[in-house]
Amino acid sequence: MTVDFAALATPGVRSLQPYIPGKPIEELERELGISNSLKLASNENPLGSSPLALEAAQRAAAELHLYPDDIGFRLRQRLAAEHGVSADQVLLGAGSSDVISMVVRAFLGPGRNGVFAQHAFAMYPIYTQASGAECRAAVALPADHPDMPYGHDLQSLAAAVDENTRVLFIANPNNPTGTWLNAPELKAFIAALPAEVVVVLDEAYTEYVQQSDFPNGIGWLGEFPNLIVTRTFSKIYGLAGLRVGYGIANPELLAVVSRVRHPFNVGSMGLAAAEAALDDPSFVARSAEVNHLGLRQLESALDQLGLGRIPSVGNFLTLDLGRPATDCYQALLRQGVILRPLANYGMPQHLRVTVGTEEQNARFISALEQVLKAC
Amino acid sequence: MTVDFAALATPGVRSLQPYIPGKPIEELERELGISNSLKLASNENPLGSSPLALEAAQRAAAELHLYPDDIGFRLRQRLAAEHGVSADQVLLGAGSSDVISMVVRAFLGPGRNGVFAQHAFAMYPIYTQASGAECRAAVALPADHPDMPYGHDLQSLAAAVDENTRVLFIANPNNPTGTWLNAPELKAFIAALPAEVVVVLDEAYTEYVQQSDFPNGIGWLGEFPNLIVTRTFSKIYGLAGLRVGYGIANPELLAVVSRVRHPFNVGSMGLAAAEAALDDPSFVARSAEVNHLGLRQLESALDQLGLGRIPSVGNFLTLDLGRPATDCYQALLRQGVILRPLANYGMPQHLRVTVGTEEQNARFISALEQVLKAC
Repeated sequence: MTVDFAALATPGVRSLQPYIPGKPIEELERELGISNSLKLASNENPLGSSPLALEAAQRAAAELHLYPDDIGFRLRQRLAAEHGVSADQVLLGAGSSDVISMVVRAFLGPGRNGVFAQHAFAMYPIYTQASGAECRAAVALPADHPDMPYGHDLQSLAAAVDENTRVLFIANPNNPTGTWLNAPELKAFIAALPAEVVVVLDEAYTEYVQQSDFPNGIGWLGEFPNLIVTRTFSKIYGLAGLRVGYGIANPELLAVVSRVRHPFNVGSMGLAAAEAALDDPSFVARSAEVNHLGLRQLESALDQLGLGRIPSVGNFLTLDLGRPATDCYQALLRQGVILRPLANYGMPQHLRVTVGTEEQNARFISALEQVLKAC
Repeated sequence: MTVDFAALATPGVRSLQPYIPGKPIEELERELGISNSLKLASNENPLGSSPLALEAAQRAAAELHLYPDDIGFRLRQRLAAEHGVSADQVLLGAGSSDVISMVVRAFLGPGRNGVFAQHAFAMYPIYTQASGAECRAAVALPADHPDMPYGHDLQSLAAAVDENTRVLFIANPNNPTGTWLNAPELKAFIAALPAEVVVVLDEAYTEYVQQSDFPNGIGWLGEFPNLIVTRTFSKIYGLAGLRVGYGIANPELLAVVSRVRHPFNVGSMGLAAAEAALDDPSFVARSAEVNHLGLRQLESALDQLGLGRIPSVGNFLTLDLGRPATDCYQALLRQGVILRPLANYGMPQHLRVTVGTEEQNARFISALEQVLKAC
């Protein structure tokens, strides 16, 4: 007896292509038969995590047989204080992608649509399609744009919105391009949207940004009832392995989104480590500084090599090889350096590199020089 | 400007009532101003976790800044060997409820329906409704049934299935009733279902069961292409805080369900601890034995008190107070003993108690005696 389960799946899932994550070092080394490789593919913090967070995670191990605090009482209180909001404005997720998934499950489905920019984070279209809603990808700014090549095109995004749009996604800065929107342009854009469109402002990389006109969406919640800002502990806080993120919005919006939260969605060690990580602002500051210097190091090396790149304010940089990037990606792999190919983002000539420590960046540059000579 | 976000939500979410989890001790003690309370409300393992699992979780803390292995390569290999299946038959979840949610998101939506038994695990209707599908709750066996009061009624379940049914949920044993189905009756029931109905066989408590005719659904996969068996590390393995569960099915079915898995859905510490927990079968055996003795202890004490109870093979027992249970629940709370009220399961006269250690059970029985005298 054969059953075609793909045909029985919901309309959105029938042709759904799941997310392709960066390969863990362990798996890659297994495949290639190499060791001592350098992974600069998943925008992880090269400094690790705060020692305070590690200690808190290890202390929490004593009670692993107990379910986590479902509502994350203490961490939500702590985040509320951190951001000057009330605890009922904070929703925890297993990474910020969990919060984004909740918004989709609450507001998108057949007959509705979600709007996002071309080259934006891959989970926006994946979640949208899985819900059965229509995916509307607005064209990005052109590759030869003088200020922000591949950036979000706000006019194009606005034009994609219609009466069936229920969610609009903006990543600021955007992953995988590193491009960004400044405060005045983004605020005016959100203000002009219908209030029935829930705006997901994904600020996963915001703590790395040093531009003076870069916005903090949380400060706009008083003006925009339809805004939810998402943040994560996976990037600058160095807790990717524990899966903790959060969303901040007005209580009325958050109450509806919370209805589809899975019980116990954040584990006990994640709750404990995230809380402790907030008590170590110097770790965050040092991480931002190392990233700032690393970005400059990579930019000047790439410029010397004559390679194109997209301007970035995140903890990663996207190279433009000017030809299909697969060979270069594979050649770097054989040198033990793992980058992220972007063909699934519609950018087959680009590779994304995570900013590492000074030594890691140097090793990557050296490997890249070797590879460019050979191919 | 006011926006009615509930009205803008998807049809299923508009009237969705989320799951009500058991309160963490910390929160309850905060509310009541008490300390040293005893929580027997969430079917957690009173022996804690295997020391091997704790050590593995703590070792994993060194790499918390890295994303987990998205596909859980090692744990899936280990589970495949454990159950005599191939690794592509194993899907990991953040608890088995995550796997159940994936089945729903892959196969349920508007115009379809999900079938489950009255008094079955609360997440079946919650996930089904959230998807926009119709919830079909089959009436349970009657309260005065001689063998299995409140048990799954297989005739009633079969009658609820129609051409739009895509998922049918069976918990064996069932939570919160503790009732079960034996191998011949359950196998015949599944064999008679249309193969287009995906059967979720939720075996979260299976490791506790000692009945000789109790089935292992994994052994039936060769016969049923539409069967997915779910298991968890949250119960007998004592890792509820880390959120790890799994589903086992044929590769064709699992490939479709996996499309809606969230990337990195199981954290690094969970992967490491679960793998180590499988290396400690003596911890599992001891947990099962303590539970077996504890069930007998509770049963005989309740019989002496003249209180009704539902026969259970899980790590919990459901008492029938013969009148609304709220007063008794509250009075026990004031004695520092936390049980699970079942009004949201349509069982307002029942309370569920988790089997604890001998001392914990004795403390509960003593508190119950006090409470019954007073109310």
